[in-house]
Amino acid sequence: MDFAPDPSTRDLTDRARAFIADQVLPAEPELDEQLAADPGRWGRPPVIQDLQVRAREAGLWNLFLPGEHGAGLSQLQYAPIAELTGHSPQLAPVAMNCAAPDTGNMELLAEFGTPAQRERWLNPLLEAQIRSSFCMTEPGVASSDATQIGTRIRRDGDDWVISGRKWWSTGAMSPDARLLIVMGITDPDAARHRQQSMILVPRETEGVHIVRPLTVFGYDDREHGGHAEIAFDEVRVPADAILGGPGEGFAIAQARLGPGRIHHCMRSLGTAERALDLARERAADRSAFGRTLSERGVVREWVAGARIQIEALRLLVFKTAWLMDTVGNKAAMTEIQAIKIAVPRAVQEILDRVIQIFGAAGVSQDVPLAGLWAGIRTLRLADGPDEVHLSSLGRAEFRRSSAL
Amino acid sequence: MDFAPDPSTRDLTDRARAFIADQVLPAEPELDEQLAADPGRWGRPPVIQDLQVRAREAGLWNLFLPGEHGAGLSQLQYAPIAELTGHSPQLAPVAMNCAAPDTGNMELLAEFGTPAQRERWLNPLLEAQIRSSFCMTEPGVASSDATQIGTRIRRDGDDWVISGRKWWSTGAMSPDARLLIVMGITDPDAARHRQQSMILVPRETEGVHIVRPLTVFGYDDREHGGHAEIAFDEVRVPADAILGGPGEGFAIAQARLGPGRIHHCMRSLGTAERALDLARERAADRSAFGRTLSERGVVREWVAGARIQIEALRLLVFKTAWLMDTVGNKAAMTEIQAIKIAVPRAVQEILDRVIQIFGAAGVSQDVPLAGLWAGIRTLRLADGPDEVHLSSLGRAEFRRSSAL
Amino acid sequence: MDFAPDPSTRDLTDRARAFIADQVLPAEPELDEQLAADPGRWGRPPVIQDLQVRAREAGLWNLFLPGEHGAGLSQLQYAPIAELTGHSPQLAPVAMNCAAPDTGNMELLAEFGTPAQRERWLNPLLEAQIRSSFCMTEPGVASSDATQIGTRIRRDGDDWVISGRKWWSTGAMSPDARLLIVMGITDPDAARHRQQSMILVPRETEGVHIVRPLTVFGYDDREHGGHAEIAFDEVRVPADAILGGPGEGFAIAQARLGPGRIHHCMRSLGTAERALDLARERAADRSAFGRTLSERGVVREWVAGARIQIEALRLLVFKTAWLMDTVGNKAAMTEIQAIKIAVPRAVQEILDRVIQIFGAAGVSQDVPLAGLWAGIRTLRLADGPDEVHLSSLGRAEFRRSSAL
Amino acid sequence: MDFAPDPSTRDLTDRARAFIADQVLPAEPELDEQLAADPGRWGRPPVIQDLQVRAREAGLWNLFLPGEHGAGLSQLQYAPIAELTGHSPQLAPVAMNCAAPDTGNMELLAEFGTPAQRERWLNPLLEAQIRSSFCMTEPGVASSDATQIGTRIRRDGDDWVISGRKWWSTGAMSPDARLLIVMGITDPDAARHRQQSMILVPRETEGVHIVRPLTVFGYDDREHGGHAEIAFDEVRVPADAILGGPGEGFAIAQARLGPGRIHHCMRSLGTAERALDLARERAADRSAFGRTLSERGVVREWVAGARIQIEALRLLVFKTAWLMDTVGNKAAMTEIQAIKIAVPRAVQEILDRVIQIFGAAGVSQDVPLAGLWAGIRTLRLADGPDEVHLSSLGRAEFRRSSAL
Repeated sequence: MDFAPDPSTRDLTDRARAFIADQVLPAEPELDEQLAADPGRWGRPPVIQDLQVRAREAGLWNLFLPGEHGAGLSQLQYAPIAELTGHSPQLAPVAMNCAAPDTGNMELLAEFGTPAQRERWLNPLLEAQIRSSFCMTEPGVASSDATQIGTRIRRDGDDWVISGRKWWSTGAMSPDARLLIVMGITDPDAARHRQQSMILVPRETEGVHIVRPLTVFGYDDREHGGHAEIAFDEVRVPADAILGGPGEGFAIAQARLGPGRIHHCMRSLGTAERALDLARERAADRSAFGRTLSERGVVREWVAGARIQIEALRLLVFKTAWLMDTVGNKAAMTEIQAIKIAVPRAVQEILDRVIQIFGAAGVSQDVPLAGLWAGIRTLRLADGPDEVHLSSLGRAEFRRSSAL
Repeated sequence: MDFAPDPSTRDLTDRARAFIADQVLPAEPELDEQLAADPGRWGRPPVIQDLQVRAREAGLWNLFLPGEHGAGLSQLQYAPIAELTGHSPQLAPVAMNCAAPDTGNMELLAEFGTPAQRERWLNPLLEAQIRSSFCMTEPGVASSDATQIGTRIRRDGDDWVISGRKWWSTGAMSPDARLLIVMGITDPDAARHRQQSMILVPRETEGVHIVRPLTVFGYDDREHGGHAEIAFDEVRVPADAILGGPGEGFAIAQARLGPGRIHHCMRSLGTAERALDLARERAADRSAFGRTLSERGVVREWVAGARIQIEALRLLVFKTAWLMDTVGNKAAMTEIQAIKIAVPRAVQEILDRVIQIFGAAGVSQDVPLAGLWAGIRTLRLADGPDEVHLSSLGRAEFRRSSAL
Repeated sequence: MDFAPDPSTRDLTDRARAFIADQVLPAEPELDEQLAADPGRWGRPPVIQDLQVRAREAGLWNLFLPGEHGAGLSQLQYAPIAELTGHSPQLAPVAMNCAAPDTGNMELLAEFGTPAQRERWLNPLLEAQIRSSFCMTEPGVASSDATQIGTRIRRDGDDWVISGRKWWSTGAMSPDARLLIVMGITDPDAARHRQQSMILVPRETEGVHIVRPLTVFGYDDREHGGHAEIAFDEVRVPADAILGGPGEGFAIAQARLGPGRIHHCMRSLGTAERALDLARERAADRSAFGRTLSERGVVREWVAGARIQIEALRLLVFKTAWLMDTVGNKAAMTEIQAIKIAVPRAVQEILDRVIQIFGAAGVSQDVPLAGLWAGIRTLRLADGPDEVHLSSLGRAEFRRSSAL
Repeated sequence: MDFAPDPSTRDLTDRARAFIADQVLPAEPELDEQLAADPGRWGRPPVIQDLQVRAREAGLWNLFLPGEHGAGLSQLQYAPIAELTGHSPQLAPVAMNCAAPDTGNMELLAEFGTPAQRERWLNPLLEAQIRSSFCMTEPGVASSDATQIGTRIRRDGDDWVISGRKWWSTGAMSPDARLLIVMGITDPDAARHRQQSMILVPRETEGVHIVRPLTVFGYDDREHGGHAEIAFDEVRVPADAILGGPGEGFAIAQARLGPGRIHHCMRSLGTAERALDLARERAADRSAFGRTLSERGVVREWVAGARIQIEALRLLVFKTAWLMDTVGNKAAMTEIQAIKIAVPRAVQEILDRVIQIFGAAGVSQDVPLAGLWAGIRTLRLADGPDEVHLSSLGRAEFRRSSAL
């Protein structure tokens, strides 16, 4: 057992740290201004395009993607870098072309796409020429239960025809999101996890109706293309638009979830560190009733508790990454579920307390805390609510054998 | 000791219940539409004006105000009605002219205003012809420590001249907010709590600059006139614009806080009940993995815990109201602090869990939960953060004598 | 609604307060000495006999028992007195002949006993000449599920014959516990809640084997007769030894539980107050790193939180008592469950924190905290574990109608 | 970074696992019987002597001690073995001669002892011929503040003369505890952390009075020699009985604390695993209201939460061990504090919940849970209460630089 990062990881991490500290954080106010100046715009603001050029020059590009198509890092090597991007989740991941949902979509295309699919969709995504959305969640059903999916995909001659309604299609409000990956039922009579298929749908296809944007605690997340409700009304695409094959949708979705979840956790830890940075700044320049905030016992307990949680959970995230690298995503399922539950909860609480340290400013647009909080809060629901994972983990625990 | 409400309270509560159930809740979608249709508007939407007419006809008007100027209810009599308004905090309080910050401002005018001040400001507020804002909190200082107030009010001939900057002036984005009650330092050399004075400033006075709106977790609270940052740049008002007298600002502010805090608590409990109503609706029509939500042990524990907290805290709120009625606001300070801390914490947690029950819909604009959450979260900071009150309560506890 | 106690309750409470402060608390060290001096003794120590004489003289006797046989107080009138006895749960309740399990047993005899049963058992219990035990819980089964009871009671001629094994028969290690009230199955084929009957068994009956004492976190609770495991081996009693009639055991047990649970809650709140008294004493004479304990923000938050919880839960206990007095135990079931869950949890946490304030002394025999903690911890399991009640409350909540 | 243990650690861990599973756990009932059979005995019960012979034969001896005098394992290598001993903390550590307080005392003698001191005390300790106690904590003062120590050690000719009173001298009730290591003030005028010295005192020295045993939640911990209060009444030892030199007591105590704390954490995690083993056994054979315990959602959440906490905290313990091995105890101080706080808290909660799963049996002598709980609870006070460490960690956090 050894807790020291390897030299190349350390070097790349240092470069990412410098880029984020020197280029990304200072650009945050610019983003706010550009968003405020252009209220109706859902597409990529200029500041993001700018940062993407610079990140690419700095060799900080597509680091999330293992294998030949990406930077070739292991999950364990990517972990500390992903964490750093969580300091500025609106800007850093997208600047380095490591932002959800594109990351997961690129993984799918790299792993399950045909050469033609990769050519058409993966390459421009790797170049950040386009963005993409993943259309899985549906209104009106418990989406964590895949058998409840209502979208139907039927074969009609040489075409697939899609009918249904999706929401929480992140990014899809943006015209840049040229690709929609849509999950639906191709065979309702098949076995529980063989009913679903996944189709690559160009955004401009007839019958694709972007219905409306959804908000997250009052935020529209415009800089990322928001979250769309989309109606698919007899949307027709050619037979080769299927990813993998018929009935493979559930398995493909599962493959997507492992890396997606751990990446969320990595970034979330960086968000927690950002909150502590803000707490330190605040505590240094604010006193009440004759004492600075950092001298108050209650505040000290908060930040101490935050530090303990971050340190312990970061190690669990690292170990999970190591397991994914060494024994595979499936064998790491218990650990993936564990961090999926524990990290957002811990970070939500840390943000809540730092907001409390900031007073009313903490809930406003003047500090990034409230926005960060809303993003983290949503993670407790995305990709399955905590309770589904806790129940699954608990069931597994009762089947586990003794450590002795 | 007797826990049964008196008949007239019961009757008035029943009428308020009917009004809110039959008129207010059904109007919520209308409010959303009117706000969406008129994005730049900060003033009172038509639906509110409408409801105000109907509430007044139903005899549900100014119920918050004890004494001759208001409906003459005691705090204990008002409590269950205020709670009901918390089911729809955007609409019900304002419909019944019982919305903060006007309530506190009317209390001050009724108690400390001269006949002329009451004539000019209290009467139109009681008629809902105008609204008002309370300008106390300042950017850059710990506002819970009144000695840190930076706004200066100096005497210049027959005038008061105000210079300073306020923020979180709730309602002040609206042109309806014709009156600003401004707290500032008139005598920095006086004793700690005799330095402050309070001035009645007409919104249109020269030198009053509404700088910008503040957001709360992404919400602008437009239907209530938002929260403004305001610069007071050598704002000149006549000598008789002072409320009470020079040096009485702190005492007046304290007088305002007691009722303000308990009203927030009453409404918050109603908000918690609303959340449980929503949970019941959701649980009835949603199942996953073969069981409805209401059959899940974890969900049952949540709602059971919510019920226990609501029942216990409601009684503490009632007792606090009874103390305010019988021994006065000052003697009820410990209880006021206790509910100020405990109620928003409990309700925040209840809302968080009901959001979790709703899944992604819970954070969106489709259900009121996220907006309600943002409002409750802010109460943990408004009128002093929890920690200030906990510290004060703890100090008092160490001075308390044994119950034995 | 009125939160002031009536004058006679106030007077009786004052007398109980004086008795406990002046007579009971000072006797605690005496109890410790007598227990230490006579390690094998399970019977009533002399100090208890002594206090019983004095309590009776002071008119503080059998106050728990409503109706003609007892002092005739309502639950609401008894509540503040019961709370005060919780300051010294080893001594005060028994001194005033208000200690479990005798209280519940006397209630049963008063309500369901025949005149002959009352003559034989109730009278000496009311005089504290004897004590008693309630034999319901069994090893090896989930006792909260009454259908799992293994003890069998069969009719044989003019006798009942009991076979089975009980444990957690509180008090039964003491030879004073002359009466055992035993719950068993008389008719396994009857409806779920008509299978059980309750029999009055004299301790000296042949076939009654006191197997062993059970410990609670290392404590044997000797001063109260401990907790016994008892084997009933073909124990034969005459037909008139049945309480109520055959098949009424479950209903009788339910009747016993309501008052039993609320009395536990009342006393627990007194225990919490005792803990705060101890915290105050400790904080006054102990400092570390240059500050007293009461100046530490974290400690202040703890005691503030304790105060809030105590005040809110006390009101809920009072309201529950009022409901039991006005609408009956059955209609108060939701509230009884609520306090049964919430009070021990809160008091356990309060004790845990005061132990922390005391440092290592807090877990030792030198301060009563650890012993009090063990008693309170057990309440979360006695009369059904929290989880059973939470699940039941949660189910009820989903059937509740809106507060609106 | 690599999370796989090295082969020799894995092998040794496997052997320890087999020993504990096959020899130690089955001996637990024997220990209970021997303790019950000989109530006054504080010395080593025969079952422990027996297990020590077998552990030594199995090569599982003194594994805690790095360097030439012990088994030479690093902290990281010892960690998984220490954890396994926590499954049976009454028997396994002592069986393998890895039990506190001897472990810490042996470390001190190995590091700071003269050859003569090592010959006289370390060798018989390494052979388990004698045991020892560490006398630091004092009644009546906040022992976490070393300047408050009241014990005085004065030089008188060629002797040191010790006067003072200690308590919580673990193990010292046993006649086997031949060595007492006593901390006292030799120079009250020296700098804050140069006032203290440490003296090796044979138990039989004149003036050493073993005053009484202390209990921990009703437990006397007899199998380990209990916890003694000791009066030192002009206790005279020769000059060479000092450990290190005059004024080095504080530094030596600090050196002792690092390994002591991490060993407690390692074992505590094993205790948590034991609790989960018990939960699994219980859940398999117990049902209520028609469902087994392992099917209940609430119980599943509990064990899932336990699993997450154990996995995350174990990694933090491992990393701390690695830091102690690679950069030293002092540089690992933040991590040592972090685990010292977090592990006992988590394990206390896990035990509390498993007790709840067991019902009343859980608090009794029939399952080890209550005893384990009492031991873990005490860790939150031993070597400094949580709050001291949290405050220190919090202060450090405010001085930390950004992760960015």
